[in-house]
Amino acid sequence: MKRSVGSKRKRVIPKTGLPPGSIVYTGEHNVEKVTIEIFDYDEAGLREVRPKNVEECFPFKETPTVTWMNVTGLHDVEVIEKLGVYFGLHPLLMEDIVSTNQRPKYDDFGAHLFIVLRMLHFNEESGEVSTEQVSLVVGENFVISFQEIEADPFEHIRDRLRTGKGRIRSMGADYLAYALIDAVVDYYFVVLEKLGDGIETLGEETVADPTPTTLNTIQSLKRELGFVRRSIWPLREVVGALQRGESSLIHESTGVYLRDVYDHTIQVVETVESYRDMVSGMFDTYLSSVSNRMNEVMKVLTIIATIFIPVTFIAGVYGMNFHFMPELSWPWAYPVVLLIMLAVGLGMVGYFRRKRWL
Amino acid sequence: MKRSVGSKRKRVIPKTGLPPGSIVYTGEHNVEKVTIEIFDYDEAGLREVRPKNVEECFPFKETPTVTWMNVTGLHDVEVIEKLGVYFGLHPLLMEDIVSTNQRPKYDDFGAHLFIVLRMLHFNEESGEVSTEQVSLVVGENFVISFQEIEADPFEHIRDRLRTGKGRIRSMGADYLAYALIDAVVDYYFVVLEKLGDGIETLGEETVADPTPTTLNTIQSLKRELGFVRRSIWPLREVVGALQRGESSLIHESTGVYLRDVYDHTIQVVETVESYRDMVSGMFDTYLSSVSNRMNEVMKVLTIIATIFIPVTFIAGVYGMNFHFMPELSWPWAYPVVLLIMLAVGLGMVGYFRRKRWL
Amino acid sequence: MKRSVGSKRKRVIPKTGLPPGSIVYTGEHNVEKVTIEIFDYDEAGLREVRPKNVEECFPFKETPTVTWMNVTGLHDVEVIEKLGVYFGLHPLLMEDIVSTNQRPKYDDFGAHLFIVLRMLHFNEESGEVSTEQVSLVVGENFVISFQEIEADPFEHIRDRLRTGKGRIRSMGADYLAYALIDAVVDYYFVVLEKLGDGIETLGEETVADPTPTTLNTIQSLKRELGFVRRSIWPLREVVGALQRGESSLIHESTGVYLRDVYDHTIQVVETVESYRDMVSGMFDTYLSSVSNRMNEVMKVLTIIATIFIPVTFIAGVYGMNFHFMPELSWPWAYPVVLLIMLAVGLGMVGYFRRKRWL
Amino acid sequence: MKRSVGSKRKRVIPKTGLPPGSIVYTGEHNVEKVTIEIFDYDEAGLREVRPKNVEECFPFKETPTVTWMNVTGLHDVEVIEKLGVYFGLHPLLMEDIVSTNQRPKYDDFGAHLFIVLRMLHFNEESGEVSTEQVSLVVGENFVISFQEIEADPFEHIRDRLRTGKGRIRSMGADYLAYALIDAVVDYYFVVLEKLGDGIETLGEETVADPTPTTLNTIQSLKRELGFVRRSIWPLREVVGALQRGESSLIHESTGVYLRDVYDHTIQVVETVESYRDMVSGMFDTYLSSVSNRMNEVMKVLTIIATIFIPVTFIAGVYGMNFHFMPELSWPWAYPVVLLIMLAVGLGMVGYFRRKRWL
Amino acid sequence: MKRSVGSKRKRVIPKTGLPPGSIVYTGEHNVEKVTIEIFDYDEAGLREVRPKNVEECFPFKETPTVTWMNVTGLHDVEVIEKLGVYFGLHPLLMEDIVSTNQRPKYDDFGAHLFIVLRMLHFNEESGEVSTEQVSLVVGENFVISFQEIEADPFEHIRDRLRTGKGRIRSMGADYLAYALIDAVVDYYFVVLEKLGDGIETLGEETVADPTPTTLNTIQSLKRELGFVRRSIWPLREVVGALQRGESSLIHESTGVYLRDVYDHTIQVVETVESYRDMVSGMFDTYLSSVSNRMNEVMKVLTIIATIFIPVTFIAGVYGMNFHFMPELSWPWAYPVVLLIMLAVGLGMVGYFRRKRWL
Repeated sequence: MKRSVGSKRKRVIPKTGLPPGSIVYTGEHNVEKVTIEIFDYDEAGLREVRPKNVEECFPFKETPTVTWMNVTGLHDVEVIEKLGVYFGLHPLLMEDIVSTNQRPKYDDFGAHLFIVLRMLHFNEESGEVSTEQVSLVVGENFVISFQEIEADPFEHIRDRLRTGKGRIRSMGADYLAYALIDAVVDYYFVVLEKLGDGIETLGEETVADPTPTTLNTIQSLKRELGFVRRSIWPLREVVGALQRGESSLIHESTGVYLRDVYDHTIQVVETVESYRDMVSGMFDTYLSSVSNRMNEVMKVLTIIATIFIPVTFIAGVYGMNFHFMPELSWPWAYPVVLLIMLAVGLGMVGYFRRKRWL
Repeated sequence: MKRSVGSKRKRVIPKTGLPPGSIVYTGEHNVEKVTIEIFDYDEAGLREVRPKNVEECFPFKETPTVTWMNVTGLHDVEVIEKLGVYFGLHPLLMEDIVSTNQRPKYDDFGAHLFIVLRMLHFNEESGEVSTEQVSLVVGENFVISFQEIEADPFEHIRDRLRTGKGRIRSMGADYLAYALIDAVVDYYFVVLEKLGDGIETLGEETVADPTPTTLNTIQSLKRELGFVRRSIWPLREVVGALQRGESSLIHESTGVYLRDVYDHTIQVVETVESYRDMVSGMFDTYLSSVSNRMNEVMKVLTIIATIFIPVTFIAGVYGMNFHFMPELSWPWAYPVVLLIMLAVGLGMVGYFRRKRWL
Repeated sequence: MKRSVGSKRKRVIPKTGLPPGSIVYTGEHNVEKVTIEIFDYDEAGLREVRPKNVEECFPFKETPTVTWMNVTGLHDVEVIEKLGVYFGLHPLLMEDIVSTNQRPKYDDFGAHLFIVLRMLHFNEESGEVSTEQVSLVVGENFVISFQEIEADPFEHIRDRLRTGKGRIRSMGADYLAYALIDAVVDYYFVVLEKLGDGIETLGEETVADPTPTTLNTIQSLKRELGFVRRSIWPLREVVGALQRGESSLIHESTGVYLRDVYDHTIQVVETVESYRDMVSGMFDTYLSSVSNRMNEVMKVLTIIATIFIPVTFIAGVYGMNFHFMPELSWPWAYPVVLLIMLAVGLGMVGYFRRKRWL
Repeated sequence: MKRSVGSKRKRVIPKTGLPPGSIVYTGEHNVEKVTIEIFDYDEAGLREVRPKNVEECFPFKETPTVTWMNVTGLHDVEVIEKLGVYFGLHPLLMEDIVSTNQRPKYDDFGAHLFIVLRMLHFNEESGEVSTEQVSLVVGENFVISFQEIEADPFEHIRDRLRTGKGRIRSMGADYLAYALIDAVVDYYFVVLEKLGDGIETLGEETVADPTPTTLNTIQSLKRELGFVRRSIWPLREVVGALQRGESSLIHESTGVYLRDVYDHTIQVVETVESYRDMVSGMFDTYLSSVSNRMNEVMKVLTIIATIFIPVTFIAGVYGMNFHFMPELSWPWAYPVVLLIMLAVGLGMVGYFRRKRWL
Repeated sequence: MKRSVGSKRKRVIPKTGLPPGSIVYTGEHNVEKVTIEIFDYDEAGLREVRPKNVEECFPFKETPTVTWMNVTGLHDVEVIEKLGVYFGLHPLLMEDIVSTNQRPKYDDFGAHLFIVLRMLHFNEESGEVSTEQVSLVVGENFVISFQEIEADPFEHIRDRLRTGKGRIRSMGADYLAYALIDAVVDYYFVVLEKLGDGIETLGEETVADPTPTTLNTIQSLKRELGFVRRSIWPLREVVGALQRGESSLIHESTGVYLRDVYDHTIQVVETVESYRDMVSGMFDTYLSSVSNRMNEVMKVLTIIATIFIPVTFIAGVYGMNFHFMPELSWPWAYPVVLLIMLAVGLGMVGYFRRKRWL
């Protein structure tokens, strides 16, 4: 669960000096080739195509059926640009698709809506959470989704489209957009569940055996949660704006579904908040258990020292070499002194008992 | 008053990949069988029925009298579904009824209102607070309430319906809904009273005898209160929305009662806030009493050490074996040295007295 | 200035299970009998009556003159109920009058306004602040005030009514209501002044001689102020709502006076806030002075130990019994060693001087 | 820079029991006599008068030229009252003028506006900031300003009026009011500059040589800044309300100037906020430097103790009086033991070096 | 990365007593001479002029082409004034241009818009961030930009104007204004990147080797970030206001670009917030590592002392000079006592092992 400070810092884009609308991919090359999947469907049937080049996508713009084009891989800017130009997307919109560090946002371009989401991924090995940008362009009867890597959560939607389960095939492009957003939000719960496991383990460690490493983990978990929160928080507004139904592209019947996603989003945000509270509490526990340990160390030192310092003094007194020390020649002096020492020691122990230190 | 970190974490739903409106119960099976109680009443009389199967409920939809159907147990999804379909409930509404980790919310479906509440339960043994979801569907002349376990607070309402006490029998379904909400909110005070007892005990423990366990209890109580707060906070909006009378299902005469519930809700929230302040204060008291203890330990060590270290040194000096140490052969040297030691010790004690350490 | 944690906790009402509008007194019985004072006045004259039973109040409802009925003592619910029924008060309003733990609030019932205030009392002996509920029902030409105990602040208003000083007799019921609210708010300043005295004393104690008791007092003062703040804060909204003149019962000419009360309320809230800041500062001062004390204890220990441990070692060396220790037989060895010891001691003292520890 | 806790506490007014509109001066008597200055001007000329009694002011009410009456000293309530009655001021307004602990506020009385400002003064000797109330009554062609003591900032405006510099003489009463407000706000920067010097000095002291006195100064500076903030903060709203031009007494051409004052006010507030951040940072620095000192003390003790305790033990071993201790009679035993002691000591020093404690 | 407390304090303007609209430069003289660059362009061509005196700029006011006048250096107030008077700028606007400590702001003067931005500079040597004021006056077909020093970020815009790259030449003055704002915001990312490097280094230092200097750096970095935040935060509102398109000078087609800048501004603010969180976390880490060090020091002291104090006592016992101590003459007494001492020492070590201190 270690995340270097630097890795988060890298999220700042240094793409300065280019004219606006310059389509420059700012993410990492995660897939070898840009792939496009096309699902063209209506209630009657589904046509699934994997076009070899971008031009094969163009005819689907005209079909009366709903078309979902899922573009995976954003580094081949040319493909994005061709598609964008054909579908009449604004240059700034295309720039946003490939600038993969956008906050979740919602823009209404009239003929189509542009939605940016952030998908969370939990890296089991490092315990880190990373995010990937998923952009949706929602038109009258098409949805184009753009993502950097082949993400899992959409698999369920592919299944539902293929089997015709649920009402997805009988509804429009806005419902498909809803389904994609819902899939992303639902996946948050999976990631949160895993983060929660980490928090649980950490909570036990903090109480049982806190080390400076524990503190580091607490701090990085705090940052991790801050990062997740910042990725999810603006989503509330995005879904809220969609749900208010200001765009004619969102039909009224989809509104109730979007309200449902909205509720889920708030639930995600609240879960993150409660995790943050827990981690904050752990920090306090950590600090106070460090204090407690110090206390215990001091107690041991004090007990040993206060028992032995007085008796050592007594031994020192009878180690003096004065010629006239009558006790030295008394026959029972030695055992009596030993007994006095014992009494002093026991007295101290009794005092500590009374103070509840022992 | 111990609540494991994990138990709270489990509240995240991992129900991903299902089409929306899938009615899957996400709670625990708390009752053996789904039971339905029906109270069908008007000012003139009351008919109380316990139908054997869900179909027996259907005729009550048509009666001009007010009908309260109280469904206890949500695991038998089929029952919920049948009822829902017959009463024309939206699939998402039915999904929300059985997804038992919703925040309090209010949805207006036109023909009926949907209200989700959270009921608090205080487990006397563990000192934990758990919550149960109570959903209300309020129609023109019926209210259907759904709950996971058989809850107590509605008993008073059953009594009032049976005896005809108060104005409940002479008013409509909206007043019944108000009465149910009021019962849930009133029960919060009972749970808060019990939490308050725990806080009081803890407050005394923190001052009198703080241990690391005290800290754990403080932390978990803090989380507990955060949890309660999150369960209650959205209720304000819910009741506020109901009270604004935007739905024609809520009559104006009920508005004043809802305003009363609203005031109670704010009182609950403020009580929780003041409890949180108290628990925060306890944390500060705990930390500072740990500091004070350390201080006391250090003082004891310092007093003992600073009294005996100098006199032990004096003893050490006269324990040296130099051949030419004239004091050694003086007859009064030994008692004089003992007196000097005593003087040094008393001097130290006097110094500590002046410093107010003794 | 000690207030037990529990006493504040008792403010939660456990009145569950009763139908709404049940008039049950939830306070303590502070006065022996419910007493009613009636002031019936116009510019021309004043009639002051102390009716023996509640029925004697009824005729005043019809008089064209302004009538102030001041009801002291709320435990005799029957009296309240009779009065309420005759003056046409809503059952929930009557319930609120006797549920003496309401937050300040304002309700417009059309024919009359209902205002709940909280009056502060400072108990000189315990240093505790307690609150009492004062409810006002403001009609076209009457004001009924309800209070638990006979409060002082209204004495000034009685005087003004009797002597005809100021413009109170020449104005309507709304002005009387303003005057009563103003009296309550003005009395806050008296209580705050006394709390301020306590804070001042505590501030000096924290700097001069902090003990664990100081911390307890700081914490309870913090709670006390939080309690005062919660009692006063909602008053802002109440007076703000009155001043906006939404009710036709409040004449425009009274608006400027209510704005004045509003300003006073904000001043009270700000004073409480600044007290809270002071008490927070004291907590920090307390913690740091505990730290400083520990520091001083450690310094004394360190100075004594580091001066005597090395010289005791030297004495130990010459206390060894080796046969071949040439120094032992040197005639000047003893004084030379004593001088070395002195030099080591003085060197240490010099070191501490340089470090500014002495 | 010391301000006693009590002095701030005195700001609470205990003026209870008087009818509203009672004109009672609540400040201190700072000037011997109430003085009035009159500036009557238009673009053509200026007439400057110092009337001997308040009646001399009355004719200026009728002149078509702009009149500025600057009243210094508020203790002679009679003067204020006469002036107020002649100019038709509301009794509550007059009460506010002489109750010199008002927050900045703005009231529109139709025929005139009432503006309360707080002027800051920095006492060079005590380092304390005090405030004085400045009230403005702005009419169609007159401005009356009331202040407790003869303040400096208006000197610039007198100069500009006399010399006709700038556009002040060619504009109306609203511009004059703006100029007076601007002068008060500009003077805040002077006071802040001086507070800033104190903060700078304190910052250096905190790092170089923190003592408990430093903490007291930090705490009182914190309170001082809180006090300044509370005095300035409501001014934002006052100037904002003026600038929105809701009153016909404020001409549109003055709006742009008020917007400028508004910007300055925000700048003042931000400066105060940044000072508060600095002082907060100092508190943290103070605490951590106290910790660091303790650390250093402990290190010295530990180094001395851990070097000498083991070697003292060795000396103790050879000080034992057993008859059969073969080492005692070895000729090289004594120097060998001394070397061992040296080795132990040096070993310890090496250990501390490695630990970076030396 | 050291910034003295005082340097930030200097930002307060002491320009009091001057009439409003007095054009007095409050910054430092950073460039030798005021220089003006003129870019006059339309889609067809570009004319680049460097006029020798301000009068040469006047003809460009009338051209139908878009004109960008970039004024570098603000100390020669006369130049600004001449330009301002000719272009009909309000005196307060001109005052704001040369008062170089304005917050970002936006004013609509009807015929032109006035925008104040703050440009960040990162001083590589001192690690300090400084800001420079950039003011824009946006008219129908001209933009005048004012800056104190010759800033780099506009170089890209000059390039684009010269080469005709992008759509800048084909669009109006509002697009140019957008491009300038965008350049300033984009440059923030560069400065943040560098601040981020400093934070990363500091984060490692805090964990590995914290010293009091580390604390100073943390504190000054915190202040630095607070300063950056205050400089950027109001920009949100500025761009938001521009984007809402309330002015007819901003064409609708530019709105989408301004929305893009708005998104960037929010991203900048969020980055600053996340940096602040990191620095706060470092402070906590610092404090707790100071605590941990103290803990370790105490442990070493305790281990040494508790091992040697008991065995030194045993040595002291057999150093006593009593005549009757039978053990002294036993032949195996000495080695037995040594073994006992060893056992005590090992016992202590074992105890510490069990306590996990070793």
